[in-house]
Amino acid sequence: MKILVTGAAGFLGRRLINALLQRGSLSDRQGVSQAISTLVAFDLMPLAGFSDSRLKVLCGDIADPEVLRGLVDAETDSIFHLAAVVSSQAEQDFELGMRINFAATQNLLERIRRLGTCPKWVMTSSVAVFGGQLPEQVEDDQVWAPQSSYGTQKAMNDLLLADYSRRGFVDGRSLRMPTIAVRPGKPNLAASSFASSIIREPLNGQESVCPVPLETRLWLMSPAQAISNLIHGHELPGEMLRRGRVINMPGLSITVEKMIDALRQTAGDEVANRVRIERSPAIEKIVGSWPGSFASSYARNLGFTHDQDFDDVIAQFVDEYLPQALES
Amino acid sequence: MKILVTGAAGFLGRRLINALLQRGSLSDRQGVSQAISTLVAFDLMPLAGFSDSRLKVLCGDIADPEVLRGLVDAETDSIFHLAAVVSSQAEQDFELGMRINFAATQNLLERIRRLGTCPKWVMTSSVAVFGGQLPEQVEDDQVWAPQSSYGTQKAMNDLLLADYSRRGFVDGRSLRMPTIAVRPGKPNLAASSFASSIIREPLNGQESVCPVPLETRLWLMSPAQAISNLIHGHELPGEMLRRGRVINMPGLSITVEKMIDALRQTAGDEVANRVRIERSPAIEKIVGSWPGSFASSYARNLGFTHDQDFDDVIAQFVDEYLPQALES
Repeated sequence: MKILVTGAAGFLGRRLINALLQRGSLSDRQGVSQAISTLVAFDLMPLAGFSDSRLKVLCGDIADPEVLRGLVDAETDSIFHLAAVVSSQAEQDFELGMRINFAATQNLLERIRRLGTCPKWVMTSSVAVFGGQLPEQVEDDQVWAPQSSYGTQKAMNDLLLADYSRRGFVDGRSLRMPTIAVRPGKPNLAASSFASSIIREPLNGQESVCPVPLETRLWLMSPAQAISNLIHGHELPGEMLRRGRVINMPGLSITVEKMIDALRQTAGDEVANRVRIERSPAIEKIVGSWPGSFASSYARNLGFTHDQDFDDVIAQFVDEYLPQALES
Repeated sequence: MKILVTGAAGFLGRRLINALLQRGSLSDRQGVSQAISTLVAFDLMPLAGFSDSRLKVLCGDIADPEVLRGLVDAETDSIFHLAAVVSSQAEQDFELGMRINFAATQNLLERIRRLGTCPKWVMTSSVAVFGGQLPEQVEDDQVWAPQSSYGTQKAMNDLLLADYSRRGFVDGRSLRMPTIAVRPGKPNLAASSFASSIIREPLNGQESVCPVPLETRLWLMSPAQAISNLIHGHELPGEMLRRGRVINMPGLSITVEKMIDALRQTAGDEVANRVRIERSPAIEKIVGSWPGSFASSYARNLGFTHDQDFDDVIAQFVDEYLPQALES
């Protein structure tokens, strides 16, 4: 079985590759478990830090149809399409966002259509497709009204994937992801970057600025949960997807205030007091347009799962990235 | 004031051009009424049958960026973008549909963005963006779930136009149109073509086949009403569009059975008996996925209007296209 992962050098991409290599097999379109023989890891920069004979590391511009021809062939059984530029970046640079977040997806789907092999396809969509007047809890039939170019591009991908799937060009699944936290590393240009920063930086002994008010409600998923749902999304038989190819993921609905409370509970006052609210109208406008809670009935019926508790999400981060913090 | 109409040689395009030339003026972006000095009428084939010094007839491939450069310039104040291939055609020929219904719109928006002039833009969307499990009456916040490539392409246009408008590249309005009936002329490849045929052909002394069951509920708008709403959509100040750039139009909700009853009422048994039900699974699948009734609250608040009664819609058609029928 040959698998392609785009955005492989990103945070989720790396975790997914690790999980796929460890797991060693996936279901094919007939529902038969197959050993992964080749895992193509593609990104703008080459993926580093892995050593596995099944791994084939490629890099290049994902929006370039020439590059895509070398990336996907008739042997490609499954694609995890994670490549994207993040929300604030797509907002700052309209052309870059359209190119990477939309044109690349369209070109990749076109490449597959021309091959005629109908591989499985799992991609990540975003709650940024929602906006405007929203109920407290968003149902699966809530209209999309993106308030950002990022959300627009993700919604266009979702429409395209659904139509390519309906026509039998691809066996697609788009998982509409909550904000993923806690991410390791440095802040990025995602408008939701603070959701990780307000936990990660204080635990690392640094001050952290939260750009939105304490009462802001976020819809979160931990990195481990995200990977588990991506693989679950791949394994589902296409026939089960009777209510569509775009699935609002379940998640944990929590206010910024409760997140900081959980940090205080876990790590004490000194750590929690390192978070300072300093509102940014630009970030607040984007994040404030995202719903803080979803019914996700379709996803739950399909067996997707979510984190139960933010204390556990913090513990997961500490356990993986700050093991010394546990010893102190 | 310089206006562009794409799809000018189509049924709605011709009527719109006629209405604009008669009207002679439109509001500019500042809300000031301006005389129409140039009306560019663009289509694949040249528009014929008009004689007016303000009219400039151009033709070519609307998906070709080179052609678009000659079509829109810094003087273009307003665009009515009606060019499209119809639903069944987009379903039969995926590439053609993507090219004319989506890529052309994207290229035209890109041309405008690069000019930096932010013209007014009115386009037609479609109820074909809806599908799946639907309530009896569709509200403005109903999610889009197109069951056809045509609906997918229209929904992608709507998303793109909303984002280009939000960013100030264009002052866009997308009117999500009911099925337009009664159209003159011959049946076309629109899945909804029968909605006109079952009235038009019997009145013309011909048999007509209805491919959907009598209880099928349609959401209709007469041609005159459609033109009036397109112009109303143009005239609305952008500031009023606080709930978005995509507007579900009001319409007349009626079953095929009631349409035939109205035909019987107007033209008698002999005419009405020329309609025969012969179900087509392909057409039924597309048309059956479209909702038969909409709340259209946003549109009503914005002053868009609808036909009150299908008898009047038939009378409008007879009056315009079959005046001799009135005399008999």
